[in-house]
Amino acid sequence: MKPIKLLDELTELFKRFPGVGQKQAERFAFFMLRASDAHIKNFTTVLSEAKKHIKTCPVCCAYCETIPCQICTDQTRDRTSLCIVEHYTDMLAIEKTGTYAGLYHILLGALSPLDGIHYENLSIAALLKRLGSVKEVLIATNPTVEGDATAIYLADILKPYKLKITRLAKGIPSGGNIEYADVITLVNALDGRKEI
Amino acid sequence: MKPIKLLDELTELFKRFPGVGQKQAERFAFFMLRASDAHIKNFTTVLSEAKKHIKTCPVCCAYCETIPCQICTDQTRDRTSLCIVEHYTDMLAIEKTGTYAGLYHILLGALSPLDGIHYENLSIAALLKRLGSVKEVLIATNPTVEGDATAIYLADILKPYKLKITRLAKGIPSGGNIEYADVITLVNALDGRKEI
Repeated sequence: MKPIKLLDELTELFKRFPGVGQKQAERFAFFMLRASDAHIKNFTTVLSEAKKHIKTCPVCCAYCETIPCQICTDQTRDRTSLCIVEHYTDMLAIEKTGTYAGLYHILLGALSPLDGIHYENLSIAALLKRLGSVKEVLIATNPTVEGDATAIYLADILKPYKLKITRLAKGIPSGGNIEYADVITLVNALDGRKEI
Repeated sequence: MKPIKLLDELTELFKRFPGVGQKQAERFAFFMLRASDAHIKNFTTVLSEAKKHIKTCPVCCAYCETIPCQICTDQTRDRTSLCIVEHYTDMLAIEKTGTYAGLYHILLGALSPLDGIHYENLSIAALLKRLGSVKEVLIATNPTVEGDATAIYLADILKPYKLKITRLAKGIPSGGNIEYADVITLVNALDGRKEI
């Protein structure tokens, strides 16, 4: 039996999605074939519109609809504090807490030489250009090998700017269990213990 | 911070994909935003073209580019044998074996009253219309509760047509392990034992 070319092409395109293998790509393709014409039209329209209208802020590298982005232009925010995160979604997570009122800078990843992510692949040059009014830099990279290495690297290159450089606390997560916490997490929690 | 409407809309659309939750939908949306304009254009074109040109065969309910489909019109195939499967992908799997030369009928699912899938949601009416030259019906529904129920139901309604009705053998899969086989699989393997 001859394969259906367009179906194979569609499956191949879905296979490029992050974390999607052959079987899931096939499921997605069949899901799309079963969907109504109106749904497909809406999907392609939203996708094209999103691609056209969602931009990257030249200041902080966040996704935005207006340039510069909403946070960068918000004069009520604390312009002396800059929080550095790996990805846009990390910024969204911190924004959800409602307890940070400063600005953000999106690195667009973390240093990972083995994956070919070096200094020049991150938005570090843009970061160094915007330190004018900044007094505190809060490094909020992930507590992973890559995130930790990036944090150390950033702290090192930011040293000449004489800023207060902080990092998110590491320890046992809320609702966590000491019994099941891994050794590194427990060591971090002990190191960072606070008086009550 | 105000959410980006188009990004939320795109994420919502990806969340409708089978087996995709909030986090994966967000990853897909960001993946699409990072992709090149050419890739997005190609994706929307392939999707629209696939939706437009891939049809459902009115005889066997398989996806096809020409109506009726390639297998239904292939005069070299054994038209006395009809294999009933739940989905198009099941047909592809059987075709890959290269050992079945008859025709197919796609049910478009299996009976599952709890999920609202009844007799009239499957292509059973179309099946009954095409039994003219058929001498053997091979029921190849999945060996699940729903697939088994559908097989019993089909065997029952096909009885008046005086056909040979068979079902795929159940037993231990090739490369499987008797030690780890579940009880039902072992019972099926014992029941279906063959002389060697």
